Amino acid sequence: MDLEASYGFAPTEFEDRVVRAQRLMELHHLDGLLLTSMDNIRYFIGVDSTFWESYTRPWFVLVPATGAPLAIIPEIGRAIIEKTWIKEIRSWSSPRPEDEGTSLVVAAISDLPRRHGRVGAELGFELRLGMPVTQLNAIIGDLKGVEIVDGASLIWQLRMIKSPAEVSKIKKAVGIAGAVYAQVPGFVKIGDTERTILREFRGRLNMGGASAIPTLICRSDVGGPFEITGGPRNRPIADGDLLFIDTGTTFDGYFCDYDRNYQVGRATDALRYAQEKVWDAHEIGLQAATAGVTAGFVFEQMAKALSSGGADLNSNGRMGHGLGLRLTEPPSIRLEDNTVLQPGMVLCIEPALEYEPGKIVLHEETVVITDGKAQLLTVRAPKQLAQIR
Amino acid sequence: MDLEASYGFAPTEFEDRVVRAQRLMELHHLDGLLLTSMDNIRYFIGVDSTFWESYTRPWFVLVPATGAPLAIIPEIGRAIIEKTWIKEIRSWSSPRPEDEGTSLVVAAISDLPRRHGRVGAELGFELRLGMPVTQLNAIIGDLKGVEIVDGASLIWQLRMIKSPAEVSKIKKAVGIAGAVYAQVPGFVKIGDTERTILREFRGRLNMGGASAIPTLICRSDVGGPFEITGGPRNRPIADGDLLFIDTGTTFDGYFCDYDRNYQVGRATDALRYAQEKVWDAHEIGLQAATAGVTAGFVFEQMAKALSSGGADLNSNGRMGHGLGLRLTEPPSIRLEDNTVLQPGMVLCIEPALEYEPGKIVLHEETVVITDGKAQLLTVRAPKQLAQIR
Repeated sequence: MDLEASYGFAPTEFEDRVVRAQRLMELHHLDGLLLTSMDNIRYFIGVDSTFWESYTRPWFVLVPATGAPLAIIPEIGRAIIEKTWIKEIRSWSSPRPEDEGTSLVVAAISDLPRRHGRVGAELGFELRLGMPVTQLNAIIGDLKGVEIVDGASLIWQLRMIKSPAEVSKIKKAVGIAGAVYAQVPGFVKIGDTERTILREFRGRLNMGGASAIPTLICRSDVGGPFEITGGPRNRPIADGDLLFIDTGTTFDGYFCDYDRNYQVGRATDALRYAQEKVWDAHEIGLQAATAGVTAGFVFEQMAKALSSGGADLNSNGRMGHGLGLRLTEPPSIRLEDNTVLQPGMVLCIEPALEYEPGKIVLHEETVVITDGKAQLLTVRAPKQLAQIR
Repeated sequence: MDLEASYGFAPTEFEDRVVRAQRLMELHHLDGLLLTSMDNIRYFIGVDSTFWESYTRPWFVLVPATGAPLAIIPEIGRAIIEKTWIKEIRSWSSPRPEDEGTSLVVAAISDLPRRHGRVGAELGFELRLGMPVTQLNAIIGDLKGVEIVDGASLIWQLRMIKSPAEVSKIKKAVGIAGAVYAQVPGFVKIGDTERTILREFRGRLNMGGASAIPTLICRSDVGGPFEITGGPRNRPIADGDLLFIDTGTTFDGYFCDYDRNYQVGRATDALRYAQEKVWDAHEIGLQAATAGVTAGFVFEQMAKALSSGGADLNSNGRMGHGLGLRLTEPPSIRLEDNTVLQPGMVLCIEPALEYEPGKIVLHEETVVITDGKAQLLTVRAPKQLAQIR
């Protein structure tokens, strides 16, 4: 895998995204889109920075309904934006708490050609605003004749459909994690702790080409993890455990979200039964995920398979989600989600079963929706659990 | 350094934080504090999770003006919260976009003993809200007789002063990074690229005990980096470069923010002069940072030293900041910041000089303010640059 040649995008990639955004702005009656969060800014201008970890200086990108995007960036970030495809950059000497870019943003929005008097921002569903709410309110208060409205639906309509270049980056992230998963039975031994396993796993992700490793969860318990969100413990893995590892590793900004389970020593019949049941349900979900069906349909097919034979279904509220510049993106694979699957959507499909109280079996595979059958990006997990001795 | 014994806090640590928060709520006329961001939730309940990378399910903690905090957590996170010191947990089956915890939050706020009719939230200065703005607006709309106001000033008054246990974690993060900085002249060679150096550096941070490595910047250019916010390039370092590495590495949630510079091959006289000038200014800043003076005073002392002799001052807008559960926290070491330094504040002090256009020399050390002289947490950088051959 030649990683070095794979960073960044051709300028046409960004131009295409802007064109698509502008078509959607027309439909949503917007004069522009104001972006402040790392993933949305990266989506439009391609900048790679970890500087967002500091909340002192907000960054802004304004995508107008016609014409090229404009970056409003604190001076400290100007030089890196000048290396992107963005031509128009305005900046201010920051920190300047009394006006942390506010007046520049108000001026830029006010200068937009006014057709609808509405600008979309990251206010809603599955989004986080990249500036303080008080600053948003100041911007809203200073604008005359322009309303700031929720741009979430537009943003996700746009970002849900991945370009081939985006899919290729997700595939690289998936490949980096997959290579380490394959090594687990070789480097993990009974008696290792969650913490030491996590550290070794992360080291291998790093050396394998990960750009960043925002999430890595390592959980072990007798028969299955009791939960799957927390940090590692010093608990040594022991005969009878199920070891669960899950990572959101990125390549050039794009995530995988990818888990694997390993049997430590011997499994009970109940675990083996649950493992196969989840694996079979997964097959059904992977087959069901085709263009034209809803996310809810995919959930329903897996839920039926999991609940057959009286198994107690526990799905953590959903059985999958979109994937891209964030670890989880819309749609949600849940009964009530009526999003129609379309070619270019990348989905993590993850059936789960709490087969006994506090014992979870959760499988996760990633697919891209095509015109035909969904294409698997992960290497399909084996039906029989890999074993650690 | 025994890392294993150092994770987590005694329950009294959290109780003390709540008591301090409640004293401040009294002063700020608040009936409670609603928290949604990873760092604020971790501050009060101590949970370690990377689950916040997903924006699907918001988490909430409500700290009342009297009594114990309450967690309102999606079901998927309940089991991990049950392992914390928090006794009262309410949860909902998430995702549930039509009510993603909103009604539970409204009910919990409405049940608070009402003295002031005001609850603080993460609306302002150097904060980011951990739920969509539309959800905040729904909460505000559903509350009767309780106003949601900006809690930023309270939050930072509280978090700016670190307990000895917090300082000890920051010191561990600093120590993990410092150990790798000391190894750089041993493992970096002329011809290595920014990307390969970053990867090797990150691997060593990981094996050295880092809990996470949210930021790691590696920049090289002739005579100094042209900027310090972007991702790594495939540029090989060469004779005459200044190699700049900067990391926000965490231990158990607490950050270091720590840079070092290395001369690659030979330095010009101009660079050597700038290096010593910044180092000398740093000495002055480290001496100036004592309890009772303002952040602005520390800035002023360094700025005077840097601008003496006609050097062109460029400070990226400030010369340092607070440090803790976030990479950068208030106060800012800038002329206009009148925050009075107090014992327990942990500050990154970072004088910088753009000694020629596009050539930056930036030094960073971390101190904790005490009753006497500030205590250095980093190992003071040498006045002469370490060399890479």
